[in-house]
Amino acid sequence: MRSSRLAWRIALVRPRNPLNIGAAARALANFNLVEMAVVAPHTPAWDEAQGAAVGAERVMAAARAFPALPPALADVTLVLGTTTGARRTLACDLIPLPELASWLRARRARGRAALLFGSEKTGLLNHDLSFCHALVRIPTAAGCPSMNLGQAVAVCTYELARAGLIQPGAPHLIPHRSLPASVISLEHLLARASHVLDLAGYFEPKSRAAMLLKLRRFLLSLELTNEQARILGGVLAQIEWKMAHTANAGARTTSPESSL
Amino acid sequence: MRSSRLAWRIALVRPRNPLNIGAAARALANFNLVEMAVVAPHTPAWDEAQGAAVGAERVMAAARAFPALPPALADVTLVLGTTTGARRTLACDLIPLPELASWLRARRARGRAALLFGSEKTGLLNHDLSFCHALVRIPTAAGCPSMNLGQAVAVCTYELARAGLIQPGAPHLIPHRSLPASVISLEHLLARASHVLDLAGYFEPKSRAAMLLKLRRFLLSLELTNEQARILGGVLAQIEWKMAHTANAGARTTSPESSL
Repeated sequence: MRSSRLAWRIALVRPRNPLNIGAAARALANFNLVEMAVVAPHTPAWDEAQGAAVGAERVMAAARAFPALPPALADVTLVLGTTTGARRTLACDLIPLPELASWLRARRARGRAALLFGSEKTGLLNHDLSFCHALVRIPTAAGCPSMNLGQAVAVCTYELARAGLIQPGAPHLIPHRSLPASVISLEHLLARASHVLDLAGYFEPKSRAAMLLKLRRFLLSLELTNEQARILGGVLAQIEWKMAHTANAGARTTSPESSL
Repeated sequence: MRSSRLAWRIALVRPRNPLNIGAAARALANFNLVEMAVVAPHTPAWDEAQGAAVGAERVMAAARAFPALPPALADVTLVLGTTTGARRTLACDLIPLPELASWLRARRARGRAALLFGSEKTGLLNHDLSFCHALVRIPTAAGCPSMNLGQAVAVCTYELARAGLIQPGAPHLIPHRSLPASVISLEHLLARASHVLDLAGYFEPKSRAAMLLKLRRFLLSLELTNEQARILGGVLAQIEWKMAHTANAGARTTSPESSL
């Protein structure tokens, strides 16, 4: 088996310069990729982006804009962030780009993968990184580690093509219980878990947001399949119901029957 | 031996957009390259280029502009052109970028190498290609083969770094007789050869320019060392002297002594 069977989506998170959106689209077209997601662009100037997307009309036509990251990743089963490595390393793998293919093979990665690129100014933020199974680093020079956004996309898509990781015609994915859980099912699980923990008084108000990021990273690290996510969701739903019920019962002394 | 010992120069030939000059400089800086030559830029707007060269101040400061290609390559011993492969293939190797390292190893390439990128509009022209020992092709999709100039430079410099072809700190080259002849010594040889052929009435006036391109390609294909170029130059100088002398003698009947 030469490569992992993955459908790729390139996601630009809060890009500032429309020319970079167009340049990214062109790089996708150069290497036979089609799926581009643009998350909360700073200047949603699609006309200007189009001008830089020479030959990439198909990619631009299929490109989708999203107000936030989770909907851009809904059906994605493997999220990879890009980083210069300058940011404090999170507790996840930091893969040098030339080693991405062997990392994917070792992991037997399947499904739909997203490669995230942060804004020209800040890169990916901690909230974005909390969705990432691993980080990818282009091995740039220490003296000038940060790449131009369009050039970084070109180098990464070149490497995907070079390593034979791009399937001509992305596979149509049928969610299967043995396949990795998608971002949207993990988000549903996280929402349920955080509600349970709210009911349990687990969070300090001021650290709640940071704890939720950690909780998302914990859920990611479990590498759940769809079936496991479904089971865990059922368990949490039962706990949630019981706690909500008990809270109601304690506070308003309603009968169990009436709360159903 | 993992890689060939080469000092690299990136040469942009007639670039049109100053932003691409800056973006190219940034890619060089990202991958530890310093030497950039800009040949006959369409708009020599260095200030604008500087703006796109974030973090690449050293490369921009060292960048040199040339009015034409030969002086930009004077000390170069291996010239590689980049192409989308669309242009009629010349009688020289067309190397897929991922295979460049093994091509260089097989050739035992040494000295100073230049990688040429043509203008955004036309790519490299036949005159530029006549200087190239081989052509390099980024394996892009058939549906969108042409890359943005800045992105093409980034992908190529990434590959040079990936393959371990970039020496930190370019070696200082001492021309040695067993080393490959540089572009300038081949140009001197070509000038002398074309003068001899002019004296011999070898050229048709209307095909002279095209024949000179073929002659340059022929000289390149000999892969002369400095020593061989010196010997051949000496032989041609002698023939040149004799022919000029004979012509003079025939035309003006001057004595051999006085023509010396």
